[in-house]
Amino acid sequence: MFQPVYLDHNATTRLDPAVLAAMMPLLEGQCGNASSRHDYGRRARLAVDEARQRVAAVVNAHPTEVIFTSGGSEANNLFLKGAAATMKPGTLAVSAVEHPCVIKPAEQLARQGWVLREIAVDGDGRVRADDFAEVLLTRPRLLSVMLANNETGVIQDVPALASAARSTGAWFHSDAVQALGKRAIDFRSLNAAGVHALTLSAHKAHGPKGAAALIIDKRVEVQPQIAGGGHERGLRSGTENVPAIVGFGIAAELAAQRLAESSARVQALRQRLEAGLNELGAMIFAVNAEKLPNTTYFAFANIDGETLVGKLDREGFAVASGSACSSANPEPSHVLRAMGVAPEFARGAVRVSLGGDNTETEIDQFIHALRATVGRLQGLTAIAV
Amino acid sequence: MFQPVYLDHNATTRLDPAVLAAMMPLLEGQCGNASSRHDYGRRARLAVDEARQRVAAVVNAHPTEVIFTSGGSEANNLFLKGAAATMKPGTLAVSAVEHPCVIKPAEQLARQGWVLREIAVDGDGRVRADDFAEVLLTRPRLLSVMLANNETGVIQDVPALASAARSTGAWFHSDAVQALGKRAIDFRSLNAAGVHALTLSAHKAHGPKGAAALIIDKRVEVQPQIAGGGHERGLRSGTENVPAIVGFGIAAELAAQRLAESSARVQALRQRLEAGLNELGAMIFAVNAEKLPNTTYFAFANIDGETLVGKLDREGFAVASGSACSSANPEPSHVLRAMGVAPEFARGAVRVSLGGDNTETEIDQFIHALRATVGRLQGLTAIAV
Repeated sequence: MFQPVYLDHNATTRLDPAVLAAMMPLLEGQCGNASSRHDYGRRARLAVDEARQRVAAVVNAHPTEVIFTSGGSEANNLFLKGAAATMKPGTLAVSAVEHPCVIKPAEQLARQGWVLREIAVDGDGRVRADDFAEVLLTRPRLLSVMLANNETGVIQDVPALASAARSTGAWFHSDAVQALGKRAIDFRSLNAAGVHALTLSAHKAHGPKGAAALIIDKRVEVQPQIAGGGHERGLRSGTENVPAIVGFGIAAELAAQRLAESSARVQALRQRLEAGLNELGAMIFAVNAEKLPNTTYFAFANIDGETLVGKLDREGFAVASGSACSSANPEPSHVLRAMGVAPEFARGAVRVSLGGDNTETEIDQFIHALRATVGRLQGLTAIAV
Repeated sequence: MFQPVYLDHNATTRLDPAVLAAMMPLLEGQCGNASSRHDYGRRARLAVDEARQRVAAVVNAHPTEVIFTSGGSEANNLFLKGAAATMKPGTLAVSAVEHPCVIKPAEQLARQGWVLREIAVDGDGRVRADDFAEVLLTRPRLLSVMLANNETGVIQDVPALASAARSTGAWFHSDAVQALGKRAIDFRSLNAAGVHALTLSAHKAHGPKGAAALIIDKRVEVQPQIAGGGHERGLRSGTENVPAIVGFGIAAELAAQRLAESSARVQALRQRLEAGLNELGAMIFAVNAEKLPNTTYFAFANIDGETLVGKLDREGFAVASGSACSSANPEPSHVLRAMGVAPEFARGAVRVSLGGDNTETEIDQFIHALRATVGRLQGLTAIAV
């Protein structure tokens, strides 16, 4: 079967064969419920515990700081709403470029008496220090600034922001879903700087869908959002998804082992890609910011991003026109709007997010297809005008 | 490797090989995010849509009434807290024998201004009609009564209760997690009787962990508990766990196909088991109630259930001393307490929950091991006294 070239690794990634191999015994025979007190249950519990140690080790956290959830969206909701539920409503501030699964729960809290403050970013998608300083003057109780953006790949200086926020006493959370496997993550050092919680997700780093984690400083009081049998230290009830959790542990370990080589490799591919894009006259967003090695976000003036993604799909290239999760929504990206990108470019946004399996040949083929497609679309535009 | 005899199917079940086979293409290569607008994404979306149709068909619901979640606990929390969030606090009532993932969110709501009323059950674990009538006089806004109990297997007359509750205008939810695969479930007919939502879970019916559903009448307004990208009609955000959802669809279909044969088979095994238990002088709980065909809950006076489960585990039999999810908690079962079971029997509770793979030989071996173990423990007790 024809397999299109996959250039959408920020949406999800292929399950690594070694990860699947580690999951198979749990899918095939070892069917226990990790809460059961018999041989099947104990083996399931052991598998979950080992995975917890692996995930903790990869991000330099203690295993007891790892709360497994079903996904990054759940972990972000758990932190924001779970911590908010233990406080009197006050101000919460999240960066304007957060993923919807941070912005939407923040908006839910705003309807329950919290004051929601969005933190402005500059034209390259970085949190503006001056606006962040203003936010701190409002004495926020909760802050959330992502480690790396899913659309632009822009990396925020989270340690500096968290350090600046320490005096406010706010709990500082960072969505690290896009960082896992693309950048080293050290919770102990982030925690020392003032970060109290991190979100990770397996399926963004060649792990399975259905497993993720909130890494959390135990001083943060959090109310469970899924209450019940008291799993995950009472913070997240529900039968553990043992195979997915096991896969998460292995995927995190492999991601850490391969990080240096894989980053260098995708960075080189990205440079090749961006050289080609520059030659075609594309505008590349957030060029001056530090970015994830694998992500390029670009547009051609007056060429609709959705249209371009559709044409490239038919040519055999899988790319995104915006973050995958909001692609049901045809509005221009809120990330680009926050960056002040002109609408004629924002509507054209296309994201290429590379993975360790991509090759130079694929990049060259992609640029070739893009040149032809853009040429045709620009020709049509010229005729239409 | 030695495989103990698995008699704990209400805790979780083995993944059916046919279910795993259907999941494998999604685990091996088809890695798309169902929200992505390219070939990989469309294939993932198609797989999710097909699974939604399968699950809907099995319980006679419309596919748009199926909201996929990561588990039964999440679905129960979503209904209770999601519906409550759209109303002014009032009374909510749940049966005294609900699973902790119904009772705990109800208790959370009680801390937010709701009045929580537990509905009493009789000595056989059935909701008491007189107490239910009293509850209705309090004009509850939310009601939750499970279809079948996880510990006792007792089936509630949900259609009759829902019909009686119609005039109150309350939303009526039923946790059907233990019913799937053990009893026919017809949402259309339950809905006509006055049931507005049902919870199902894949892993209790030979499907994968990590997929479940809230089946919900679209007139019920619900606030998402995991907010974000707007998946599942905006009611449950987060990247769809495509392989698990696909497995759920197939597992539900197989469960329905095998229901008649499998129920008859496990019912016959249970009769054999209960004959043996009666011979040994066990007290069997909820003997007069209609029960799931696979569940027997029993005790021997003054023999601790945890101890017995531990001894049986060493003999090669996997059974439960209470519901798996609360087995971190050594307190006697809240279900038996609600039934008025004397503490010396409640502390001894052991649950056997059979599956389609169990055999007569296994039952005979179990009774044989139980006879020897109980004999030894009673001997010790006699000496100790």
